[in-house]
Amino acid sequence: MHAVLAQLVADLPDGVVVTGAAEIDKYREDFARDGSAGTPIAVVRAETAEQVQQAVRWAAEHRVPVVPRGAGTGLSGGSSAVDGGITISLDRMRAIEVDTACQVAIVEPGALNVEVKAAAAKHGLWYPPDPSSFEICSIGGNLATNAGGLCCVKYGVTTDYVLGMDVVLADGTLVRLGGKQIKDVAGLSLLKLFVGSEGTLGIITRAILRLIPAQTAGATLVAAFSTVTAASRAVVAIRGRVRCSMLELMDNTAINAVEDWRSHGLDRSTGALLLAQSDATGAACETEIDLIRECCEKEDASAVFTTSDPDEAAMFVAARRNAFLALEQRGSVLFEDVGVPVPVLPDLVAGITAIASRCEVEIALVAHAGDGNTHPIVVYDAGRPEAVAGARRAFDEVMALAIELGGTITGEHGVGRAKKAALPDQLGAEVMALNRRIKDALDPDGILNPGAVL
Amino acid sequence: MHAVLAQLVADLPDGVVVTGAAEIDKYREDFARDGSAGTPIAVVRAETAEQVQQAVRWAAEHRVPVVPRGAGTGLSGGSSAVDGGITISLDRMRAIEVDTACQVAIVEPGALNVEVKAAAAKHGLWYPPDPSSFEICSIGGNLATNAGGLCCVKYGVTTDYVLGMDVVLADGTLVRLGGKQIKDVAGLSLLKLFVGSEGTLGIITRAILRLIPAQTAGATLVAAFSTVTAASRAVVAIRGRVRCSMLELMDNTAINAVEDWRSHGLDRSTGALLLAQSDATGAACETEIDLIRECCEKEDASAVFTTSDPDEAAMFVAARRNAFLALEQRGSVLFEDVGVPVPVLPDLVAGITAIASRCEVEIALVAHAGDGNTHPIVVYDAGRPEAVAGARRAFDEVMALAIELGGTITGEHGVGRAKKAALPDQLGAEVMALNRRIKDALDPDGILNPGAVL
Ligand SMILES: Cc1cc2nc3c(=O)[nH]c(=O)nc-3n(C[C@H](O)[C@H](O)[C@H](O)COP(=O)(O)OP(=O)(O)OC[C@H]3O[C@@H](n4cnc5c(N)ncnc54)[C@H](O)[C@@H]3O)c2cc1C
Ligand SMILES: Cc1cc2nc3c(=O)[nH]c(=O)nc-3n(C[C@H](O)[C@H](O)[C@H](O)COP(=O)(O)OP(=O)(O)OC[C@H]3O[C@@H](n4cnc5c(N)ncnc54)[C@H](O)[C@@H]3O)c2cc1C
Repeated sequence: MHAVLAQLVADLPDGVVVTGAAEIDKYREDFARDGSAGTPIAVVRAETAEQVQQAVRWAAEHRVPVVPRGAGTGLSGGSSAVDGGITISLDRMRAIEVDTACQVAIVEPGALNVEVKAAAAKHGLWYPPDPSSFEICSIGGNLATNAGGLCCVKYGVTTDYVLGMDVVLADGTLVRLGGKQIKDVAGLSLLKLFVGSEGTLGIITRAILRLIPAQTAGATLVAAFSTVTAASRAVVAIRGRVRCSMLELMDNTAINAVEDWRSHGLDRSTGALLLAQSDATGAACETEIDLIRECCEKEDASAVFTTSDPDEAAMFVAARRNAFLALEQRGSVLFEDVGVPVPVLPDLVAGITAIASRCEVEIALVAHAGDGNTHPIVVYDAGRPEAVAGARRAFDEVMALAIELGGTITGEHGVGRAKKAALPDQLGAEVMALNRRIKDALDPDGILNPGAVL
Repeated sequence: MHAVLAQLVADLPDGVVVTGAAEIDKYREDFARDGSAGTPIAVVRAETAEQVQQAVRWAAEHRVPVVPRGAGTGLSGGSSAVDGGITISLDRMRAIEVDTACQVAIVEPGALNVEVKAAAAKHGLWYPPDPSSFEICSIGGNLATNAGGLCCVKYGVTTDYVLGMDVVLADGTLVRLGGKQIKDVAGLSLLKLFVGSEGTLGIITRAILRLIPAQTAGATLVAAFSTVTAASRAVVAIRGRVRCSMLELMDNTAINAVEDWRSHGLDRSTGALLLAQSDATGAACETEIDLIRECCEKEDASAVFTTSDPDEAAMFVAARRNAFLALEQRGSVLFEDVGVPVPVLPDLVAGITAIASRCEVEIALVAHAGDGNTHPIVVYDAGRPEAVAGARRAFDEVMALAIELGGTITGEHGVGRAKKAALPDQLGAEVMALNRRIKDALDPDGILNPGAVL
């Protein structure tokens, strides 16, 4: 073993620094499996913030790259390991404490989103952000990517729920930002700057998250359309009239992939499904569901089904949530995360269809449609070089289309390594330079997650 | 006139650069009147973003301090003019465009908050953030301070509604951040960093603000208590059970000041008033109001009044909104803006009473109580040196108390110049250093709002 690494191993408790090749291998890639992952010299499975600080101080001293890692469910190669670097995994730091009086959860970064939700629910409280991956992703990863999800169309994204954060900076200093107070404008909004910074500015070791009273059950509407374009036109109409608590879309390919994987009883001939929820109470909920139905019918929905049975609703939501995993069964995949202003959603959807046929690849579509945030998923056969090239071309063209339509290459998954090349096309040289200035100010030696984002 | 200034005057259209002493004087102070204001060599009343860029480029070249200014309603000396500097006033840039399909308003910074609300309301849409000063403060100022208000206890603060912003940087470069898309995580969260930066990082020349469907009318509850402590205990209880759309508090001094100024029909003997609203629909609204009533009665509210008449409710809200202006009639004032975690609100309130008696000053209290954000207002006689000293001492002690209780010196007004001395006590040396690094990275010559915040 490297002498320098030996020092780190000696400085930290037994078992914290993992150096065995087989063990390390589990921490190399995230769910994007985008081919960017190198091989780290070690994985530090920190148990405390102090250990994170120790490891970062060591890395700073020896100019060793550091990749922070949560649960590795990212879809942009953000936690891909770096050759010669270390990966600091937060997966052992998962304490959760709920302060019911303050209505906050104080959590360690490795806690899974689902665990935070469960801890809050015990006290009748709710942590809203709900990425589809909520059962397998960590809060630290959610914070570092500013994760979205299904309820964010009404309840906002991760950044809206962060009141405080401890962050280990590139030199090993730990700063404590914010607190349990709800409003705080003392000094620059550093808290919000670290949210979504994808491990490039610091390592989050603790967070104080705002909780709100538990959501009411509400009602669910499922509408079938013959085309994705019709469904997306319905989305635009719905958004103009109702503040849904969920507004999701799946196209025919996604429906069939989900049915192939595990039957959820969806009709395989459906062109596109919309899944809408209202959590308004009483008569207001009925009114909202009626308005949603009206919008769907105007766009010639072939079937509209409503339910206020939570279990029945959960089945549809699960089908939507499982789409990524189901599509992975069909071949190799490239996950997109493009977003556009809601009214141009139909143009985005039509453009994606055109790209798929031009590049001769299959592109499935699921979307947090109510926010204009879509996940076109390019499915291809990695064994055929033309298919690989077509898939890559389609991936890039979809991002270019989103930019052209005034949107973004990433609504919630982050830039990571997979979308890095397209970032300057969206931001332009001056905003790129501004990003760079902040990065250089906070991490002058560039040891934090090098190769990601910038 | 200074030769260097003559160049700026010549470069900009007639009337943009104001140099007359009387005219300049109107732009020297904000509502804090904290004595920090110097005399600028000119006020640039920009009409376009390009003019802002020209003025900043000129200032950068000649190392002239630049103070950005909205409507000057700030309560922390944030837009106080600087000797030898220029003030860039945005008060002429007030265009507002509503994109109903995207549900956003595209606004110039000088537009008043009330004007944005009105433009949105024409289309059945709502821009929630509502500082008490909403009729007189600008959106640019709101963004630069991350302004809060009355409805933010349920609907969040300014930062929660910002989708895009144009910002002129310290070298005159204009960067365009975000857009009309609702979710966007491409690159660092620069948008959120500029929000609340109090003119120290850049000058906001345009913003894209998210609108939501108009609020339902709901119902209002007014409860009278014999002491502020009892009222604040009721706040803690209410927050644990209901998500009010407003939860405000006024103490006896504030009530009497308001009555002295313009009678609103409030009972002058009331120890403290709570003003709560629910904007839930139908039966849910009744349930919420009942729960609020229950919490008030448990804390021995002497009178509880409810109404669903919007005009009647508006009268009480106006009384609360007018408290600052009414208190100013009683003497010189120091505006505090301390916030604490909600459960310790009663401790803060009790501590403030003790400080008032110890320092022999009057401290009135109004509060966005539901968020734990309070405005103790120190009223004193500026003609009596002991009173001035006592008031200053009380001002500092209240901030120290908030910090001790795990809170903040400023929940929404900003640090500006008035609270600058206390900022390190709250943030600590390391977070101060981090603020400084960001400031230096974005404004290396320190020309933007020098003397404010840091
Ligand atoms: C089936 C499936 C569905 C998904 N659905 C959604 C969805 O609906 N919405 C959504 O937003 N995402 C979704 N994702 C993507 C992913 O789950 C999220 O990006 C999640 O936030 C990543 O969390 P993680 O713990 O797995 O982070 P990782 O993948 O380990 O890391 C993600 C990024 O965060 C950084 N990071 C992680 N922890 C820390 C820390 N403590 N400090 C600093 N940086 C850190 C990493 O360096 C990396 O850049 C989905 C993924 C899958 C597989
Ligand atoms: C009666 C009264 C009630 C109030 N109630 C509330 C309340 O409930 N909630 C609340 O949050 N505040 C309240 N305030 C404070 C004040 O109104 C807010 O801080 C408001 O946001 C300031 O807006 P302004 O346009 O007056 O800004 P200014 O006072 O002109 O400036 C405030 C700060 O913002 C900077 N700034 C202004 N415009 C720009 C720009 N375009 N780009 C960059 N920086 C800029 C200035 O440099 C300064 O630091 C109240 C004030 C009064 C007088």
